[in-house]
Amino acid sequence: MAAVPRSIEFWFDFSSPYAYIASEWIEALAARHGRTVNWRAILLGASFRVTGLATPVSFPLKRDYTMLDFERSARHAGVPLTMPEVFPIATQNAARIFWWLSSQDEARARQWARHALRAYFTRGVDLSDNRALDTLADEFGLAPGQAEAVWSDTEWKNRLRAENDAAVAAGVFGVPFFVVDGEPFWGNDRRAQIERWLERGPF
Amino acid sequence: MAAVPRSIEFWFDFSSPYAYIASEWIEALAARHGRTVNWRAILLGASFRVTGLATPVSFPLKRDYTMLDFERSARHAGVPLTMPEVFPIATQNAARIFWWLSSQDEARARQWARHALRAYFTRGVDLSDNRALDTLADEFGLAPGQAEAVWSDTEWKNRLRAENDAAVAAGVFGVPFFVVDGEPFWGNDRRAQIERWLERGPF
Repeated sequence: MAAVPRSIEFWFDFSSPYAYIASEWIEALAARHGRTVNWRAILLGASFRVTGLATPVSFPLKRDYTMLDFERSARHAGVPLTMPEVFPIATQNAARIFWWLSSQDEARARQWARHALRAYFTRGVDLSDNRALDTLADEFGLAPGQAEAVWSDTEWKNRLRAENDAAVAAGVFGVPFFVVDGEPFWGNDRRAQIERWLERGPF
Repeated sequence: MAAVPRSIEFWFDFSSPYAYIASEWIEALAARHGRTVNWRAILLGASFRVTGLATPVSFPLKRDYTMLDFERSARHAGVPLTMPEVFPIATQNAARIFWWLSSQDEARARQWARHALRAYFTRGVDLSDNRALDTLADEFGLAPGQAEAVWSDTEWKNRLRAENDAAVAAGVFGVPFFVVDGEPFWGNDRRAQIERWLERGPF
């Protein structure tokens, strides 16, 4: 009997540049090591309210550096990124669509995640603007009105809230956040450590 | 006429595990690229008061992860590190000794920095304990009573304060913090980006 591939947990927020960068390399990295990736959309803002943490761009001195580092880290990773004019944004509606898709087809949910992350971080499509999000869902192939029906539905509001709570309970305080074989890794900049873990095991 | 080696600015705090890890690789990395390193001891706590930021270990959820990440990041870098029982600590006296030495001999100040960082992060020598610091200064070869005379001296108190202010003015909000050819890099985890910059120039 073949071993079941052990999944890498991957938490992201549609508004996080570092999560976007990670979303562009995690699948290939996992695949090279016979792993799958379990994508989990959350709202970092909701976690911040619980943990007392805040986005790095909320501190003036840190903001300038971080804005520079977002784009430099993307170039370092070979990922196209242009910081959107409107940033950060509220992404609950994009995340609700993710969880609705995920309930039917996880691969399709991942495709949506990548589609929406790329739209925001390469074309500046404002995911917090419902009209823009609706157009994006249309491009993605959802039926007219489907996106809005999902993001207005209590079921998907509750599901996202439950996922946020579960993330905090799992120790997630930022994104991208990964768990590999029970080991937590926070940040796009832990890529080399994750790679080492997958190649050679715990260290 | 030979070009003057362009210096890498390196800010550290004697209480930062990530700065300690970086202190173990920055000299060799700089030397491989014909650069020198300008070490600058600061008190991160003083910067935090200006910037509104805080140490990652002050947030319960982040603390557990960060404590794990300190040691894992050290292993990843091949640097011996055992988290001290007393952590974080106030390191103004160790920093004043650094600046006093630096005013006479920068190489000797760097040696002191490495001596004290290693003592704290491999042997748990509490640099905030004046008796322990005095013993450490003795081991290092300072004359009896010299360390205390320096850390009690207004001149070195003022110098450290001025260096803290200069760091904040330069945009330093955390450690380790590097500036290479005017480009800022924050964190032990920016090593690969610094290396790329030194090898191939701006990206």
